[in-house]
Amino acid sequence: MTVTHASSPAASTSGESHERLIGVVHVGLGPIGRQVLAFLAGRGSYRSIGAVDIDPQLIGRTLNQVTDGANGDAVVVGSVGELPAAGPGAVAIHCAGSSLEKVAGTFAELMRAGYHVVSTCEELSDPRSTQGELAAQLDRVAAENGVVLLGTGVNPGYSMDYLPVVLAASQRAVHGVAVHRVQDAGLRRLPLQRKVGAGLTVEEFGERVAQGTIRHVGLPESARLVDRALGLGCTEFTETIDPVIAQARVPLGDSAVDTGHVLGIDQLVVARRNGVEVIRLHLQMAVGLPDPRDVITIDGDPGLETVIRGLHGDSATAAVVVNSLGRVRVAPPGLRTADEIPASPLNF
Amino acid sequence: MTVTHASSPAASTSGESHERLIGVVHVGLGPIGRQVLAFLAGRGSYRSIGAVDIDPQLIGRTLNQVTDGANGDAVVVGSVGELPAAGPGAVAIHCAGSSLEKVAGTFAELMRAGYHVVSTCEELSDPRSTQGELAAQLDRVAAENGVVLLGTGVNPGYSMDYLPVVLAASQRAVHGVAVHRVQDAGLRRLPLQRKVGAGLTVEEFGERVAQGTIRHVGLPESARLVDRALGLGCTEFTETIDPVIAQARVPLGDSAVDTGHVLGIDQLVVARRNGVEVIRLHLQMAVGLPDPRDVITIDGDPGLETVIRGLHGDSATAAVVVNSLGRVRVAPPGLRTADEIPASPLNF
Repeated sequence: MTVTHASSPAASTSGESHERLIGVVHVGLGPIGRQVLAFLAGRGSYRSIGAVDIDPQLIGRTLNQVTDGANGDAVVVGSVGELPAAGPGAVAIHCAGSSLEKVAGTFAELMRAGYHVVSTCEELSDPRSTQGELAAQLDRVAAENGVVLLGTGVNPGYSMDYLPVVLAASQRAVHGVAVHRVQDAGLRRLPLQRKVGAGLTVEEFGERVAQGTIRHVGLPESARLVDRALGLGCTEFTETIDPVIAQARVPLGDSAVDTGHVLGIDQLVVARRNGVEVIRLHLQMAVGLPDPRDVITIDGDPGLETVIRGLHGDSATAAVVVNSLGRVRVAPPGLRTADEIPASPLNF
Repeated sequence: MTVTHASSPAASTSGESHERLIGVVHVGLGPIGRQVLAFLAGRGSYRSIGAVDIDPQLIGRTLNQVTDGANGDAVVVGSVGELPAAGPGAVAIHCAGSSLEKVAGTFAELMRAGYHVVSTCEELSDPRSTQGELAAQLDRVAAENGVVLLGTGVNPGYSMDYLPVVLAASQRAVHGVAVHRVQDAGLRRLPLQRKVGAGLTVEEFGERVAQGTIRHVGLPESARLVDRALGLGCTEFTETIDPVIAQARVPLGDSAVDTGHVLGIDQLVVARRNGVEVIRLHLQMAVGLPDPRDVITIDGDPGLETVIRGLHGDSATAAVVVNSLGRVRVAPPGLRTADEIPASPLNF
């Protein structure tokens, strides 16, 4: 009853060859930048040829000294101008800042030096809709220098924007999109736990939200990317940030968060068309949240629900960045967004 | 405690304009071809300018007469040579046959006439690995004529190959991929129920499998696409086809499938590297299967599991085809595979 076809491997048909390794420079050696380094060390096609950081304790050290010894002897410098010349197809991986306005000059300098730029800058994920003039300038610099500029990461760049767009391709029509992302901040790095306000009082949390220091950057950008890619025509985008409050004492590292204190953020972006809700992006990042997951619901014809378990923030951001490198190098020059570039590794 | 940012819609920043509608011709007006027509009728950017079918009852009729009246007055012709001239960016949607060898001539004729070609031909989904010489010829014809040739659909083309590759982008490393797709053939069109052998005796099923008339075409292609895109280095691909047998009488339309008879197929492709299983694509299409779903498991670092409910075969195939059109028109000319072209609608 069983028919078996066995077959030998196909002859190599890939257009890729390994005549040379692609040079990579690293701008920003914080937690994500170091994860990117670690991930790249396991890939055969790339070689880290330089790095920049502002930390005086890192400048002058080799990447091997900064990491666990698998990234070579390139020396960390203090400015982009000191980086080595970009060889053909060289890429700069930028993990240093969320504000596009603050890092745009660095992007331009890297692109003029001949580097493609892939950045985790959240505001770069859909800059055309939020910072049009700056986006147009960066697009021009990229095109003039024949390189690609891409903002990506797991969120924004993948879980709450790219994946819903990819899943919408199975639909005859899309009426709305909802994404609910739940992350247990207790499993994440300490800076993130601070960023989401873990351990604060509700009053302190409110002050920091008002100051703008507690906020996941990029959620409105994700909503705009989904809106634009799917042609949903939203006319109003609203963002709210509330605390997740401990109902009982919750352990955190060597300490704990007391009852009534803050565990993290509950952030919501709703996009409406003529007053009707069309897109709902709901992000919860808090210590001790059960069942971390991403639920992507497409209200469409026929509609679809996807539940993903395993999209861990820091690790997935570094992975999405590294796995985009192959596609970035073959994309048309210019400012690109995640929906334009398949988040599919080229031979991994 | 709540901070609200409201914002007005961004100025239109899309590079797309609607100065003209894109012409589409339809080759094959079977169940899938007609669904594609129905889906396209709801989209503003395209216009159906011609159609080909071999059915004498269709030839000479207008598309409006063939469908429900929303596809215009183009007349169905009997051969590709009678189609109208392809305007700029025109696309031929081909839904007529699974065997690449049989339809390659039609593809070449369409491309020489200036059409991009998007086809549901299952063997076109990863032809380089299985039919290398023919694939190279078609690639040349596409490149010479400045058009794209793409094989896609929901399976192969999306659920068991493209989506796992997209999901793998979140991983530091991938060790293996498993996809389990469960489809209730009772909800599908009659030709599909026949194709999977619903109602046959186990003996009849075995005969038809041996003859090659019962088989979902494209599963090995999906495995090869995943292997290639993720660089998994598989060296052996094995396909088995078994019946799903009714344990009790199961209703089917006006009739039923008796106990002990066949409800459908259970098809499995396993790809191994040095004898070790790396890829497992398991497809069950049978009448009455409970909980239709796609489960995609990435064995990686850190690993991931995705459960999707709602990827219905016929409808999703037509949707994936229609939603690929925008991307096909901006992709580099040549033979392309689904992993190279984002399955993301361009403004839907």
